[in-house]
Formats: sequence, C-alpha cells, structure tokens
Amino acid sequence: MTTGENFTLLTDLYQLTMAQGYFRERKTGRATFSLFIRSYPRNRGYFVAAGLRDVVEFLEGLSFDPAALDYLHSLNLFTDDFLHFLSGLRFTGDVWALPEGRVFFADEPVVEVTAPIIEAQLAETFIINQINLQSLIASKAARCVRAAAGRAVVDFALRRAHGTDAGMKVARASYIAGCAATSNMRAGQRYGIPLAGTMAHSFISSFEREADAFRAFVESFPNNATLLIDTYDTLHGARNAAQVAKEMAARGLRLQGVRIDSGDLEKLAVEVRRVLDDAGLKEVKIIGSGGLDEYDLARFSAANIPYDSYGVGTKMGVSADAPWNDMAYKLVEFDDRSVLKLSTGKESWPGKKQVFRVHDDQDQLCGDVIALRGEEIAAAEPLLTQVLHGGKITGRLPTLNDSRSVCRDELDRLPEIYRAIVDPARYPVQFSAGLQDLRDAIQTQALQAQ
Amino acid sequence: MTTGENFTLLTDLYQLTMAQGYFRERKTGRATFSLFIRSYPRNRGYFVAAGLRDVVEFLEGLSFDPAALDYLHSLNLFTDDFLHFLSGLRFTGDVWALPEGRVFFADEPVVEVTAPIIEAQLAETFIINQINLQSLIASKAARCVRAAAGRAVVDFALRRAHGTDAGMKVARASYIAGCAATSNMRAGQRYGIPLAGTMAHSFISSFEREADAFRAFVESFPNNATLLIDTYDTLHGARNAAQVAKEMAARGLRLQGVRIDSGDLEKLAVEVRRVLDDAGLKEVKIIGSGGLDEYDLARFSAANIPYDSYGVGTKMGVSADAPWNDMAYKLVEFDDRSVLKLSTGKESWPGKKQVFRVHDDQDQLCGDVIALRGEEIAAAEPLLTQVLHGGKITGRLPTLNDSRSVCRDELDRLPEIYRAIVDPARYPVQFSAGLQDLRDAIQTQALQAQ
Repeated sequence: MTTGENFTLLTDLYQLTMAQGYFRERKTGRATFSLFIRSYPRNRGYFVAAGLRDVVEFLEGLSFDPAALDYLHSLNLFTDDFLHFLSGLRFTGDVWALPEGRVFFADEPVVEVTAPIIEAQLAETFIINQINLQSLIASKAARCVRAAAGRAVVDFALRRAHGTDAGMKVARASYIAGCAATSNMRAGQRYGIPLAGTMAHSFISSFEREADAFRAFVESFPNNATLLIDTYDTLHGARNAAQVAKEMAARGLRLQGVRIDSGDLEKLAVEVRRVLDDAGLKEVKIIGSGGLDEYDLARFSAANIPYDSYGVGTKMGVSADAPWNDMAYKLVEFDDRSVLKLSTGKESWPGKKQVFRVHDDQDQLCGDVIALRGEEIAAAEPLLTQVLHGGKITGRLPTLNDSRSVCRDELDRLPEIYRAIVDPARYPVQFSAGLQDLRDAIQTQALQAQ
Repeated sequence: MTTGENFTLLTDLYQLTMAQGYFRERKTGRATFSLFIRSYPRNRGYFVAAGLRDVVEFLEGLSFDPAALDYLHSLNLFTDDFLHFLSGLRFTGDVWALPEGRVFFADEPVVEVTAPIIEAQLAETFIINQINLQSLIASKAARCVRAAAGRAVVDFALRRAHGTDAGMKVARASYIAGCAATSNMRAGQRYGIPLAGTMAHSFISSFEREADAFRAFVESFPNNATLLIDTYDTLHGARNAAQVAKEMAARGLRLQGVRIDSGDLEKLAVEVRRVLDDAGLKEVKIIGSGGLDEYDLARFSAANIPYDSYGVGTKMGVSADAPWNDMAYKLVEFDDRSVLKLSTGKESWPGKKQVFRVHDDQDQLCGDVIALRGEEIAAAEPLLTQVLHGGKITGRLPTLNDSRSVCRDELDRLPEIYRAIVDPARYPVQFSAGLQDLRDAIQTQALQAQ
C-alpha cells in the first residue's frame, strides 16, 4: 500500500473461518470471484469505475504480519498448522478488471479474481470496501459535474466524508469523475490533485468588521483570494467585497471571487452579481456552496444562475441520495467447475466473464454484452483487462489524470438519455447466448445435487 | 495516533490560507470553537457521542512532518516565515467534551476547543471528520440495538462502509452503542471488540453438495459453527443443517446456529424454526441478515419473529436513512470577545458553554440546558469535562467498554418517547438566560459593526 499500512486483517471473521475450512479439506483449487453491482439505486443510470489501484496494491502486498498472526492465535479459533500456512500466504492470483474511469452498468463484472480459493476469499472484504466506495462517489460526482454544465465543481467533502480514508477517496474518485480540484490537502499531497479553497466564517468573525477581515485576507493572498460574503448579510458582504476589490484594483491587483454559502442561493447569486457588475467588477467570480448536490446544480444551470463554480461537499461525499450500492463478490467458478448462487434476489451468473461494449457509427455507446471470457462478440470492445498475473501487477498503472481522461471521454460518448439526473433510461445490457446456456445448465445441475 | 499515521495535513486548504492570514496579522489570540449538530435528521430524536478518543490523540500528536512542509512549500502559496512557524507548531490548547457514549441533542456542544486561533482552526477538519462519522454511526447503531429488543446485533458493515477508516470506526462506534460483536478482524485486533461470523455462500458453492459443505465446516469449528442455509433453497438448507446437527449430536457436539440471508426473512424464520424444532433442535439459534436496519428489526420484534440475533451491515454502516449530520465547528469566542455567525439557517450561539442535564426523581432524563461555561444550573449535571489541558490529555481516557457502559446506562434513562424509531418526540433543550442575553447583545453589536 502507498500508505505503508498492512490491511490484510481488514477482513471479516468468516473469511478466515472459511479459509480454515478450505485448508482442512485441502481445497487448494483455483476459484474465480466476480465483483458487480446487482441493481441501480434510484436516479442512477450508470456507474463510474474507481478504486482499482488501491485493490491491486493491496493484493500485491497481502500478507499477515506477526502482530496479525499473534492476534489470530489469541482467538483460540485457528489451528497451528493453519496459522503456519497463513504466515507464508501471499496473493498469487490473476485479476481482470475494468479500468478506472470507465462507465459500467448493473450485473457487469468490474473485477474478476482468479486464485487459490483461500487467497481469493481473503481478498473479498477489502476489494468490495474500496471499489464500492470509490465507484459510488465517482458515479455521484460525475452527476454533479454534468449538472454543473461546464462550471467547475470542487470537492469540499472531507469534513463530512465517513472517516479519513473516505475523505481521501472522495477526493480521488471525484477527481477521476471530473471535479476540478479538492480542498483536501492530504489528497493534494498524495494524489497530486489541484487544491482549491476560500475562507471560513471564523476568519471573518475573528475580526470586528467584515471589511477588515477581507482586507487582511487579500494582503496575504493578493492574487487568488475568494472572499466569503455571507457571515452577516450577504448583500452587505458583497458591497464590502466590492469595496476591497476596488482598493485592490487601485494597486493593480484583482479580486478573484466571492463565495455564497447560505440563504437563497439562487436569488442571492443574481443580486450579488448585480452588486459586482454595478461596481464594474464583471471579472470577479461567484462561487456557490452550502449543501449542494446535482439536483441543485441542474436547477441552477437550467435557470442560468450566475455562479462560476461550485464547492460541493457533504451530499457528494456521502452520495446522500444513494449512500450504498448493492455490490457483491460472488464465486462463479471453482476447480474448473462453474458455480452460481440461487438465493432469492441475489442470483448470480456462473463462469469467468468479459464485458463487450458496442458503439454506434457516431462512436456513441449503444449497448453492452456480458459474455463468457473467451467468447467473441463481433464489432464490440472487450472492457476487462488483466491487471495482475501470478500476483504481480502487469505493466504500468494508469495515472490519476489518465483515468480522468478515460472518464471524460467515455461520459462524452454516453447518450444523454442514460445520463439524465432524474429517471435516466436503462442502458441495454445483454447476456450472451453462451452465458445463458451455461447458467441454465448449472442451475438445473445445482438444484438436482442438493 | 494509534495507527502511527500523521493526519495533520488531512485538512482543508482554507484552514492553512486562513492560518497564514492570522499569522500575517499577528492574530495570536485564543479562540474557542464549538462543535455541535444543527438539526435532527428525520426519525432521529437523540445522538450518541463517539469519536473523542481519536480527536484527543490527533490533537496531542498534531505536527507538520517534513514531507508535509515540503508539499506546502511546493504550492507557492505560503511564505517562508509562515512555513517556518508551522514547522514548530503543536497543539497547546484546552478541550472540553462530552464523554463518548453519552447522549446529546441538536445545538449542544459536543466538543469545545480553546487554543491560539491558528491551532484551533487547523484542528477543525479532522475533529468534524471523526466525531461526525462516529456519532452518526453510534446513533444509528443504538437505534438498531433498541429495535432488536434484547437480541444481539452484530456489525457486518465492513465491506460496504465508506473505506477502511469507516470500517474500523463503524465497528468501534456500534460497539459503544451496544452492538455485541463485529465481523471486522482488524477492529477486533485494535479495539478488543468481540468477533462474530458465520460463512459465506462461496463456501457452500465450492462444494458440489450443500450438506458436504456443512459437514466440512463443522469439522473445522465443532463448537461454534453457524451454517448459512439460503444458498439454494432455504428450507431444504434448514433440513440439511438439521441432518448435520443430528450427526453432530451423535458425537456429543452441538450445532450453534443457522443463518438466513435472503428471501422473505419473516416467513422463512418461522418455517426454519419449525424445521429445527421438529428435528428436536430447539437450542439451535437462527441468525438473520441481509439488508436489515432498525425498521426491519422493530417489525420483527413486534411480530415475535424467531430470530435469536442479527447481522446488520450496510444500512447501519452508512446510516442509510440519514447518511450525514449537519455538524458544524463554529468560532464562538476570540480574544475574550464572544462572536457569532448570522448566516441564514446557520446562526450560532456565542461564548464558551456547558451543557446541563436534568434528571427526574426516577433518574430519567427530563431536559437539558445549554448555558455559558461558569453559569450554575441548580440540580443539574454538567456534561462537558476537560479532556486536554495545554495540549496534553488530562487523566486516563475511558476504555471502549467504559464508554459502552456509559451509553447503555444513559439510554436506559432516556424516556421511550425520545427513543421511538419513527417520529420520536423532541427532547427539551433550553438555552440559559445568560446565554440568551449574551446572544442578543452580540447580535446587535455585530450587525452595527458591519
């Protein structure tokens, strides 16, 4: 891991109890697990893949350190020979995956892991934990970016994201999905994401007069100051900002912008724009923030509310209208035998898979086919690529900017009807004949065997 | 930090730009910031405090390491003298806080930080990030535990929690709130939380016959096996489990339980109970899981559905019906001057505070008073205690089990009407006369000054 932390024990107890069960039964066969989302949350028409880099780095480094082994020993659940086996365990499998930034749909495998079953099982929890979160947020952020219709969206979510890791991963995933910058300094440091930020109400309140706070701030940041104008009265704040901007102009400096963070954000933007324009400050930008999400941004865009950019925090950072995806990691093949699960509402498709994407003659996405790996689908692009071979990363991992470009290009090719903020159309996803035949055969077989 | 990671840079850019503004203005005065939740999400009548330990450990270790300073330097935003100042910065302030496990209500300060303003400002993001998440989850988990009406609730949220830190903190916070165990092994290792787990569908699928999978698993865990019975057909699975249980009984062993994870969880529990009882297996427990939340658990409890315990995952781990709280950290005093913010919908209360709790003669909670620190409220218990003095932790931090006891005791004393799962009554929280007078005075003053 880039953080140096060993997350091998960040797993569920049952992964280890099952592993001991496999170990005892000498089940060393190779298993394939498929990671996919079962269904769309409301108003979601597509997902954006993210989190793969963390997964491949985790798998490459998977190992139980001495403290972990000591802890496992202390539980009196595991046999000595099993713990000895764990002490030497490394991930030796193959992984196929959808590159970060690509769009995917319900039922489509995003990651497929093939490895000795114990290894593949032990990796489950971390894989879901990371891909689920980062894809959830990338999907939400893509919606925000689209709704902003060309205005920059900046990630302000760190404080209300669910913990430190979520704060980092929200910055990362939302940048892949098209956000312009983040307020999170550690994400800037670790991922090289551009930073953006303004000032908080506390800075204003620490001065007796708002205008004095503005003056002090622009002294410190004469070239890139954005003033927060809603601490007391937004229009009065706008006039104070205009006054300071004029003082700056007299010294050859330019105020970058003002931020509105509360109140009737639509009405205030129009009024603040008028105050600034009347003061000859047409170039001073207005940033909107305060509980915004894609539904607000779409409304603002439709009404041409004069915001130049947005700070979007909590609701993007927790994907407030859909805070989880029904993402599952299911055994689809074991020891060259295809398997499936028939649990009500949780049926799975057997076998190793490939996803094929069909483009029309305008290069727009027009449908996907989920097929068996090895099947050929004419004139379609296979999407899953091998990222680990024998436990080692195959080739160069894409940079974050690579993944961001991939995402922009793909979203540009996704027709509008699937990208609608509300009630998007269902993108056509078919199962290949080979996959359907396999499923029917296995299903009959599985039920008969019980 | 217990993890060894330095999270000082896990902050928003504006904290550092404001800090440079304060530094340049030689604003070295002491500031007090108050952390509180502005309003109740739907169906929430109380909150459970959690996350303080991470905050005090963070504050005690706050410092910019060389890599952080290099990164800040590389941004070309900060002056050399400011970066030099940051290199020696430590947290030297005082912190008062509500102990973990205690119940709190909207508007009540949970943490109050008093420190030189730059230090207090730099701590904001991490403090909100941790207390917001952990209190959010503790509050949600307390609802689940209550709804389960005496049946054990186990945290299964790790995979769908928002990242690695959330996975750990959900285990921690839900344990404080009364969960009996977690599936998260790393949380078991780090926090000493009891572990629980069963098996996954993949274990079953890896065998050709379900009954063989059951036999293999109980061989490995003869004393504590819980069998997952819904991979193919739940009632058939129950009969297979009953068969294996009888085989075990013949060897003097006892099957611990079975788990149902899909389908009509109410109907199936009744039917599975009948299968087990008819086989003379009254002592075999039934665990329910699969998308459960407090609303389901309350329904099951009311209908006496024969579950003995529950695994609760995603919806508790992301607080699905209320995935964020409107938690804010506001400047309330600077340089001995009380301050406030008047932004629409985000008004704050000035001054250092104390929260007083009034109990009735049955020792039930009957109302809180938010007062100025130093005010006396007769026959009421002051809730905030000092946890840091001059940047150092004062006294022993409570253990996780201490906090869990505090929570249980307090929830036992919170009358039912405030604990309702749906539409709870509003617990009475008053503002003291001293606080109201101060606010009126400051408000007039602040508006006149602008």
